[in-house]
Amino acid sequence: MRIVRYADPDIRHGILERDGTIRQLAGSPFESLAPNGKVVRLADVRLLAPVVPRNIYGAGLNYVNHAREMNLPLPAVPMLFMKPASAVIGPDAPIVYPREGENVHFEAEVAVVIGKGGRRISEAKAREHILGYTCGNDVSERTIQAAEMKQGCLVIGKAFDSFNPLGPAIETDLDPADIEIIARVNGVERQHSNTSDLVYSVARLVSHISSAITLLPGDVIMTGTPSGVGPVKPGDVVEIEIPQVGILRNPVVAEAAGQTGRSVA
Amino acid sequence: MRIVRYADPDIRHGILERDGTIRQLAGSPFESLAPNGKVVRLADVRLLAPVVPRNIYGAGLNYVNHAREMNLPLPAVPMLFMKPASAVIGPDAPIVYPREGENVHFEAEVAVVIGKGGRRISEAKAREHILGYTCGNDVSERTIQAAEMKQGCLVIGKAFDSFNPLGPAIETDLDPADIEIIARVNGVERQHSNTSDLVYSVARLVSHISSAITLLPGDVIMTGTPSGVGPVKPGDVVEIEIPQVGILRNPVVAEAAGQTGRSVA
Repeated sequence: MRIVRYADPDIRHGILERDGTIRQLAGSPFESLAPNGKVVRLADVRLLAPVVPRNIYGAGLNYVNHAREMNLPLPAVPMLFMKPASAVIGPDAPIVYPREGENVHFEAEVAVVIGKGGRRISEAKAREHILGYTCGNDVSERTIQAAEMKQGCLVIGKAFDSFNPLGPAIETDLDPADIEIIARVNGVERQHSNTSDLVYSVARLVSHISSAITLLPGDVIMTGTPSGVGPVKPGDVVEIEIPQVGILRNPVVAEAAGQTGRSVA
Repeated sequence: MRIVRYADPDIRHGILERDGTIRQLAGSPFESLAPNGKVVRLADVRLLAPVVPRNIYGAGLNYVNHAREMNLPLPAVPMLFMKPASAVIGPDAPIVYPREGENVHFEAEVAVVIGKGGRRISEAKAREHILGYTCGNDVSERTIQAAEMKQGCLVIGKAFDSFNPLGPAIETDLDPADIEIIARVNGVERQHSNTSDLVYSVARLVSHISSAITLLPGDVIMTGTPSGVGPVKPGDVVEIEIPQVGILRNPVVAEAAGQTGRSVA
């Protein structure tokens, strides 16, 4: 099933059906997937990021082919960073190219949405803690990222407001070891891979992170990007697709003079 | 004024007076500091972490004398990492020495609590966005931290549940460029410095982080630790003191077999 979050104009969750209708949920999908009987049409509402994450954990160099294209060795331990929820935007919302931006890249990723929290979750039990999967774009400013990573830490290069598009839906019924992931820029395919090429599997990431951290409902794990990353510029349109989820489409726009931030989506 | 958060047993905020009484606030200190007329005694309640942060941003190698003791150059740009809120504990709560722990260190830090959110906050306006300051302990597992930083990222070594004690109060009336910070282990002083020795000042950190990220009320910036860090072991008691704030005291305990996580404080 595909779970969406939308403005009607009140913010609600619902189940997106194949015929383009949405069955509204009574409350949060982290509590119950029970519908309340109300049905709306996808065309009549505005989709939002399907989850406002409590925490976002990202994995770097986690596809064999991406590590090769970067001429870097596979990570000896999972290469993790965190991103703030203020970076999250939903479908069709603009990725804002910041004033400081010199080399902003798109990164198509499978985003794992934690449903049931927990600590020390085994790989065997990881799926019981996952609500589902959505498309993520781990937008990155490479010049800042490189300067930070040289010192051993990474925040700003991955954290600009709007640098974490998520959506359009959370698909609950996927095999995390076999999820196809595609990126297109201005309609041209740039990335096309599958989580079968992950260095650290989805189950391993859940287990590794939760060895230290109590995962919470709504936490998101960005599982890393395959080969084919590249720059974007204002005017471009980036699409991330997981076939069973849908297409996450975001235009890139230049930061306006005097722009002073945003609320969390 | 000193703001505390406590269980009575309901969770409330209040103003801690010099005579040991607490004037209860009507609501959250991020909305209003208006008291509701009720007064309780500090001795009759249990203090909690004074804030449950939305995000925690940490600064590494941010004291001149700490960089020297680590034989490392001063960071060319602020060296930032994030910690999850699940790491936060309050006064007297145990720091849990994890099973994986080989070399767990205490780190006394001035923790800045953001009061008013914002993006692109200038250094000159940083203080308008700060609610106050509290004692923080940026507990770190050095073996894991080193393995992660070698790859350019850092999460797990700083992020174990209980690795971010905060408290006992938020003092609103301090000069961020002149805050004394002290650490003691089992009563023996181990760190003693002042934010006047910071590489990147509090105002600079607020400005730098908010150049990319919309800061939110309740976000915490851990401003880095001075020289004198060292290991702790189960049975130790760590005290972090800022004289105008009070003493944040936490025992270190071994992780129990089968321990499976915690709720956020």
